[in-house]
Amino acid sequence: MPVMTVRILIAGMDGYLGWSLAMSLAKRGHEVIGADNYSRRRNVEEVGAWSAVPIASMDERLTTFEKTYGKEIEFCEGDLTDYHFVRGVVKRHKPDTIVHLGEQPCAPYSMIDVHHAVYTQTNNIVGTLNILYAIHETSPPTHLLKLGTMGEYGTPNIDIPEGFFEIEYRGRKDKLPFPRFAGSWYHWTKVHDTGNIMFACKIWGLRSTDIMQGVVYGTRTDEMTDDTLLTRFDFDEVWGTAINRYCAQAVIGHKLTPYGKGGQTRGFIALRDSIQCLTIAAENPPDKGEYRVFNQFDRCYNVTELALKVKEAGDRLGLNVKIEHIDDPRIEAEEHYYNPECVKLRKLGFKPSHEIEEELELTLNDLMKHKDRIAAKKDKIMPKPYWRM
Amino acid sequence: MPVMTVRILIAGMDGYLGWSLAMSLAKRGHEVIGADNYSRRRNVEEVGAWSAVPIASMDERLTTFEKTYGKEIEFCEGDLTDYHFVRGVVKRHKPDTIVHLGEQPCAPYSMIDVHHAVYTQTNNIVGTLNILYAIHETSPPTHLLKLGTMGEYGTPNIDIPEGFFEIEYRGRKDKLPFPRFAGSWYHWTKVHDTGNIMFACKIWGLRSTDIMQGVVYGTRTDEMTDDTLLTRFDFDEVWGTAINRYCAQAVIGHKLTPYGKGGQTRGFIALRDSIQCLTIAAENPPDKGEYRVFNQFDRCYNVTELALKVKEAGDRLGLNVKIEHIDDPRIEAEEHYYNPECVKLRKLGFKPSHEIEEELELTLNDLMKHKDRIAAKKDKIMPKPYWRM
Repeated sequence: MPVMTVRILIAGMDGYLGWSLAMSLAKRGHEVIGADNYSRRRNVEEVGAWSAVPIASMDERLTTFEKTYGKEIEFCEGDLTDYHFVRGVVKRHKPDTIVHLGEQPCAPYSMIDVHHAVYTQTNNIVGTLNILYAIHETSPPTHLLKLGTMGEYGTPNIDIPEGFFEIEYRGRKDKLPFPRFAGSWYHWTKVHDTGNIMFACKIWGLRSTDIMQGVVYGTRTDEMTDDTLLTRFDFDEVWGTAINRYCAQAVIGHKLTPYGKGGQTRGFIALRDSIQCLTIAAENPPDKGEYRVFNQFDRCYNVTELALKVKEAGDRLGLNVKIEHIDDPRIEAEEHYYNPECVKLRKLGFKPSHEIEEELELTLNDLMKHKDRIAAKKDKIMPKPYWRM
Repeated sequence: MPVMTVRILIAGMDGYLGWSLAMSLAKRGHEVIGADNYSRRRNVEEVGAWSAVPIASMDERLTTFEKTYGKEIEFCEGDLTDYHFVRGVVKRHKPDTIVHLGEQPCAPYSMIDVHHAVYTQTNNIVGTLNILYAIHETSPPTHLLKLGTMGEYGTPNIDIPEGFFEIEYRGRKDKLPFPRFAGSWYHWTKVHDTGNIMFACKIWGLRSTDIMQGVVYGTRTDEMTDDTLLTRFDFDEVWGTAINRYCAQAVIGHKLTPYGKGGQTRGFIALRDSIQCLTIAAENPPDKGEYRVFNQFDRCYNVTELALKVKEAGDRLGLNVKIEHIDDPRIEAEEHYYNPECVKLRKLGFKPSHEIEEELELTLNDLMKHKDRIAAKKDKIMPKPYWRM
């Protein structure tokens, strides 16, 4: 249990991370309020996909959670691009922390066409601006804990620090934001948010933690003791992240399909560890006026190594898993240097909870129960080349 | 006359730079098409201000220009946030170059409240995304010549290169985008655009020149031989830039009011030189797939030096000009290192045309004809502290 109970507003509580985090924080004794406009459900449906794990309605989730754990989570339906809504919620609750997960989180979705690009950029940028203004106008001590992405940095040929770096250039020194070079319209929204948040902290003295998160995988947190409490799990080419897609492929006997040469290296983190990190950040807020950046991942792998990890876990469970590289539908470096730093969260106590091998077996076991749902959307697994369209 | 006549679409042709550039390019023999939604006129009116120099309607401008110079400029009224409009114009004309000046260009306006912040960021980001998609979908060889701002860089304690820099960090080297740290919601839109344009060039092979422009001043280009052909000149605290505001103050006997300590240093460029630079960039397009950044200014001054320049020019014309520093309404470093590079445009032939002293006298002379219009809006000159509200 935490030393002090705090009030936490989770924007985007209906999502993969949002629902998992809400349960975990509430069970820990924090007061949790959630907001969502259910866009994730609609947007996944739009591309003809669905969650491998069936998910309950928000009402069912909240009722079951309360029955199971004796804790109430409050929920407000609304859209973060509606300032009236955002200001109202923030003013009413004056949360100690707002965990902002309420953005369109999908790179391929943002690349579909101009309308999806514009939707993604306006939705994400306006939502964050509205939250910043609502804090400034109605609850200045609130800590904004904002989900960014490791993808903001791209794949530079130098080490990646946590947000800022000290450099010498032409004989003079300064500490500056590390240059960003994102790889999709979605990833760029996180870069744009980073700039906006950094600026708000400077001019208004707000406090914020900007999380550069790696790719999240897995089906489980400890609170998911009832099927109604499970979180979503997307596996289609638009909404599924690399490992999750591989796991779903393994379960239905589909070849695992790393993109291109497979040397694309990223930081990865299990769902339960992402929740652990966000909890640590919420319980250790920055000072007034402080804007800090945490890189949030467990370890780096390239996508070929990951496919092998999933194959090995699958083989241990009796699945016969094959791997076949396919053309990269994205435009990205398929082999590159990658050495990001991740020390701040560890200093605050982050300890990865499982080995990846164990987490992958848990995930595959969970997915095997929903083999039919994955097989029914088999035609949604192979990628379209949105980056080249 | 240029070696080769090209077709140029100017987005934002009704603005301070847009109209000046349109005339200059058309007179040079280029085929000019303009687009605008007249938002600048409306937004200046919204804050109760007006242009010191009365400006004609677009119809009057075009008719007079054609009568005077025998050249036709085509105009399309429409909004860049409307993709249907943008795509139509780009597809119909397939311009060699699009000069994109069609953004909300004002820092204080963007800082008024959440609604102005959101309007500025969505207007600018969506307009640029729409232009990028329209080029990609209908006219891929088109050169996007985009107006950014020197304000994207902020005031780092190291030299500012032109967009990119080679750095060594922890023993490894890379060439990366120079870190940005803007000072208003408006300035951040230019940073956001920079990221989006850089990315579009990478994935789609577009070509673009991103202009980091200094603060523009002055009333004149050579084409303004008739009152109907003059461009707007804003002097109020929201829409007026530093020198233009000082000149207007000098003309009505208002003290010049540098903000704070007055050590804020920026790059400055005369209107006619800005047009010269944009013309050079349009006539020397980048290669396919190339994204290049030009810093565009003549010289750097701090705002105290500028006030002295305006005072001296005013005194030469018999005005009795006084200077009084006032509290800085912005949040910015009032004294700092500033050493931006500006060599690329000079290598392509840019030569500043007048000394600043001469340009200031021309400006003051022009404004003295409109002393009454400035005096009528005297209450719009002293700044409000938008950054602190």
